[in-house]
Amino acid sequence: MENRNKKSQQIASVRKINKSTKRVTVTKLENILYKSFKILDKGFVRVIDYMGDDSSIVQAARVSYGRGTKKLNEDKKLINYLLSHRHSTPFEMNEIKFHIKLPIFVARQWIRHRTANVNEYSARYSILENEFYIPNKQNMQSQTKLNNQGRDKQLDHLETKEYLELINNQANESFEKYKYLLNEDDSGIIRNKNKNGLARELARMVLPLNTYTEWYWKIDLHNLMNFLCLRFDYHAQYEIRVYAEKILEIMKKWVPYTYEAFILHRLENINLSKNGIQYIKNLIHGKENKNTKISRREQDELKEKFGLN
Amino acid sequence: MENRNKKSQQIASVRKINKSTKRVTVTKLENILYKSFKILDKGFVRVIDYMGDDSSIVQAARVSYGRGTKKLNEDKKLINYLLSHRHSTPFEMNEIKFHIKLPIFVARQWIRHRTANVNEYSARYSILENEFYIPNKQNMQSQTKLNNQGRDKQLDHLETKEYLELINNQANESFEKYKYLLNEDDSGIIRNKNKNGLARELARMVLPLNTYTEWYWKIDLHNLMNFLCLRFDYHAQYEIRVYAEKILEIMKKWVPYTYEAFILHRLENINLSKNGIQYIKNLIHGKENKNTKISRREQDELKEKFGLN
Amino acid sequence: MENRNKKSQQIASVRKINKSTKRVTVTKLENILYKSFKILDKGFVRVIDYMGDDSSIVQAARVSYGRGTKKLNEDKKLINYLLSHRHSTPFEMNEIKFHIKLPIFVARQWIRHRTANVNEYSARYSILENEFYIPNKQNMQSQTKLNNQGRDKQLDHLETKEYLELINNQANESFEKYKYLLNEDDSGIIRNKNKNGLARELARMVLPLNTYTEWYWKIDLHNLMNFLCLRFDYHAQYEIRVYAEKILEIMKKWVPYTYEAFILHRLENINLSKNGIQYIKNLIHGKENKNTKISRREQDELKEKFGLN
Amino acid sequence: MENRNKKSQQIASVRKINKSTKRVTVTKLENILYKSFKILDKGFVRVIDYMGDDSSIVQAARVSYGRGTKKLNEDKKLINYLLSHRHSTPFEMNEIKFHIKLPIFVARQWIRHRTANVNEYSARYSILENEFYIPNKQNMQSQTKLNNQGRDKQLDHLETKEYLELINNQANESFEKYKYLLNEDDSGIIRNKNKNGLARELARMVLPLNTYTEWYWKIDLHNLMNFLCLRFDYHAQYEIRVYAEKILEIMKKWVPYTYEAFILHRLENINLSKNGIQYIKNLIHGKENKNTKISRREQDELKEKFGLN
Repeated sequence: MENRNKKSQQIASVRKINKSTKRVTVTKLENILYKSFKILDKGFVRVIDYMGDDSSIVQAARVSYGRGTKKLNEDKKLINYLLSHRHSTPFEMNEIKFHIKLPIFVARQWIRHRTANVNEYSARYSILENEFYIPNKQNMQSQTKLNNQGRDKQLDHLETKEYLELINNQANESFEKYKYLLNEDDSGIIRNKNKNGLARELARMVLPLNTYTEWYWKIDLHNLMNFLCLRFDYHAQYEIRVYAEKILEIMKKWVPYTYEAFILHRLENINLSKNGIQYIKNLIHGKENKNTKISRREQDELKEKFGLN
Repeated sequence: MENRNKKSQQIASVRKINKSTKRVTVTKLENILYKSFKILDKGFVRVIDYMGDDSSIVQAARVSYGRGTKKLNEDKKLINYLLSHRHSTPFEMNEIKFHIKLPIFVARQWIRHRTANVNEYSARYSILENEFYIPNKQNMQSQTKLNNQGRDKQLDHLETKEYLELINNQANESFEKYKYLLNEDDSGIIRNKNKNGLARELARMVLPLNTYTEWYWKIDLHNLMNFLCLRFDYHAQYEIRVYAEKILEIMKKWVPYTYEAFILHRLENINLSKNGIQYIKNLIHGKENKNTKISRREQDELKEKFGLN
Repeated sequence: MENRNKKSQQIASVRKINKSTKRVTVTKLENILYKSFKILDKGFVRVIDYMGDDSSIVQAARVSYGRGTKKLNEDKKLINYLLSHRHSTPFEMNEIKFHIKLPIFVARQWIRHRTANVNEYSARYSILENEFYIPNKQNMQSQTKLNNQGRDKQLDHLETKEYLELINNQANESFEKYKYLLNEDDSGIIRNKNKNGLARELARMVLPLNTYTEWYWKIDLHNLMNFLCLRFDYHAQYEIRVYAEKILEIMKKWVPYTYEAFILHRLENINLSKNGIQYIKNLIHGKENKNTKISRREQDELKEKFGLN
Repeated sequence: MENRNKKSQQIASVRKINKSTKRVTVTKLENILYKSFKILDKGFVRVIDYMGDDSSIVQAARVSYGRGTKKLNEDKKLINYLLSHRHSTPFEMNEIKFHIKLPIFVARQWIRHRTANVNEYSARYSILENEFYIPNKQNMQSQTKLNNQGRDKQLDHLETKEYLELINNQANESFEKYKYLLNEDDSGIIRNKNKNGLARELARMVLPLNTYTEWYWKIDLHNLMNFLCLRFDYHAQYEIRVYAEKILEIMKKWVPYTYEAFILHRLENINLSKNGIQYIKNLIHGKENKNTKISRREQDELKEKFGLN
């Protein structure tokens, strides 16, 4: 608790500082800088720093001497054009840096995005706090039968209760054993002076995958959008999707025009394959889709997307 | 057990195939292709595929129409020159692909090398086997006091025994609970037909960090050497270093000239800072090193390296 | 001429070698290995080496002990699924290495694909041959008015003739001056013994951007497809597109199932934005597209794609 | 000329703006933000934006809630430790963005650093200005005999004069022909109304490699140091080294502690191979170096570095 207060004070203290800069700034992002947004039960997302705004994208695309902006409308059009025509380099000119707290099993998915920079809290060097992820009841779901990946319907009340207790107990026991192996209590005081603790890099082995970790994570806007495409998607695991949702909100504050184009062309778009085009073509021309080469599932998706039934 | 036999048969079966190719081949590597080399208690390293040999490096450096090789001596000299002068691109022309089984806490360090390609066994899709890492007795060590990172001396017999039992029990209980949450036994048969299991992507949360995972890992020779530099190093955690040791042996079979140059210039070299140069200079000229700017630890390292005491 | 014969002999000589391997091989690719395919007037593409085939993709996706393949039909389906659902990592498990000869202005576009490995012929170290790109008559076109980028209709006969002569003369003069600055003739013999030549790294400054250069270029299959998406596109400059066309043919020989999925989902697909979906939805339901938010050009594209007019 | 004034005004205008930010700022860098530093005869380097300072490195390394800084001395020591022990990730947390004008043959070397982001002025879309690099007299040097790469002694007065005239004429003629092919004069007015110009993407082919181009270039601090290591080196071509020199000065203003550590460990260091260590060891112990495995050239380098002769 004391520890948590100390952290809040540190955040409050850096939020007070105001300096003068000639760089482009984004007021809406400055307003939330360093602030901690809660994710899951004990995780968070904080913006630590950023470089550039919407105008920086057009400035780089135009290789400008000044701001590089023209009329608002032209800038928006250019951003829309660049994004929809897969011109990735101007979006790489913006960077954002986050401090994120997340369960280890989420971190293991997240780190697969290789085009970001990461500094993680080291459990070789430091002792991890007794913090682990426990899902909400509504997120306790059974395995999907569809494609063997992901979740299906919510478990019933009794199952949920039993399973949550089990997960909770298991994590607490693991942390108890971790501390025992380290031979240190929470405040770092040696428990049994006649014994040696096990090295931290080994003791951590008993911790469960829902233990929380923390890292600094920095990424450019182009690769951030790739991350969001994959992790905002409904196929993504709920526990990473909630981070993507918050980061998407932050992106909207940071680069509103890019955000708009991103929604249109990357999040609420549809990628029609050659066979999908034929399928829709037949629909438009009132022809039957007898021998379509697309799967039943794709057909259902298209029917829903285009309001047919 | 049955499962293990099946895997051995699959490996034996691919090892039997022989085909004709016009590509460069490396006999010593062909001889061990697909073979499983045991690491730690249950892990392994297997070479699945490779591209290029020592001659491919000189061929690329010379942008050749044919093999690109000259006299053996000239090729060795060129490789030595390229490696010692930080010409990385010719070494990027060779690739090697491994199948690796490793504990999750090791995988978390390993994945930080972003310039490799990875396909990991998915615990969202599949059920993990009851396999976890238990250290040997001699690797049960206490925390170092030196710089707070890494291990110190071996624990005594009783502590070791107690801690190993604890780690072992903890892992077994975790797997028991994992299976309980899934509501499936080892052969995938539902345990309690009146209950629903928890989704795999959630149930895995209770598994400890010493659970084994598997992946295919592909990397070019230049980045492989960077990996080996960091992970073969004595600062690296023992549990990842043993993998690096085996991979170094494999590299020796694959590209013996590059291996030789790598040992000379990257593994058994020393990087003297500006102040380190001054320190050695004084030693050579018989001057005292009174006001040296290098730390006591660096001085000790240099003294050892240069046989002074 | 002599030089060219020597190169042909070197290629012929490596093509004769046959070795035994346990690795996966692709007969259709082995048949053309090292062979030179002419591109533009003096350029070429040659496959030097490759790693993996279609089966390697499913093998990695399944993290297999053996070949990892199942029934042909299941493998094809898996590749199609992976490609259409943006699972990039299994495709990164295959590599291909080319030797390419191309004009410098094409090389400057090409090198922007950063996820490849490159070794280029060095004009600091060696002397460039007198070879430069001269377009065919039908490729001599005027500037497009559409979006200021790319070409429009073919120039008339007289203009073409005049311009081609000018380009040809200009290149010949440049090479003459290059040799003069070097103070060496074609066979490396010093021209004027009383003079010093200018350093190669400086003398090359006078060479035009259509001078040919050569490089070894290695890329994984996932990034190769990204390259082909951008460079096979009709927006791409003709002089790089012809390289992409040949490489696409080679890809078809190498990984026929991936090629098929690539055509369906990445080359002959269409990416409908949110507004594009609404536009098509209206068409299907027989509603007017009065206030559509997509541009006239996009509307024309969609109309053509879906056979409306 | 008019064009140049316009650019100066644009720069002056952005330099006037001052905004408030909660981000870390670097006064010495703010003072030169957007300012153009002349390099070579017509090139320049300008800082457009930056993210982070020295404190951001320690903040990330410590995964901090606040500024993350401790006593100045501890921060310096940590930066020194991180840099000398090859911990690259904290340095990746800082970014800097430049606008650079450089000759095309320099740009071709520069772009080989793949871990940066680039937006280049497009000669497919725009018309290049009549600007090309002409070396100073003292940089007109002959080819080195040493290793066939790089330059040797300055040419004599007459040769220099003749060669510079030739380079200058050649470039002017090329630009004349470029404009002729485009059928446009400097102000974009059509020259001959009865003719069509050649498309820009083709006309540029006649331009020489010393034509100036421009780009926005963004890189993180870790990769910037790799760039500087290679391009500040005396093996690097003079024309790229002068850019590295200016960027090193800028780095000193931006992150003075990192700069200091970089000089000690990366720029004025020495990498002793296993054989080099033996050589020095013999020197220290007064033993002869009869059968040393290092080359004569390396021996000379070591002797000079350690003040022996």
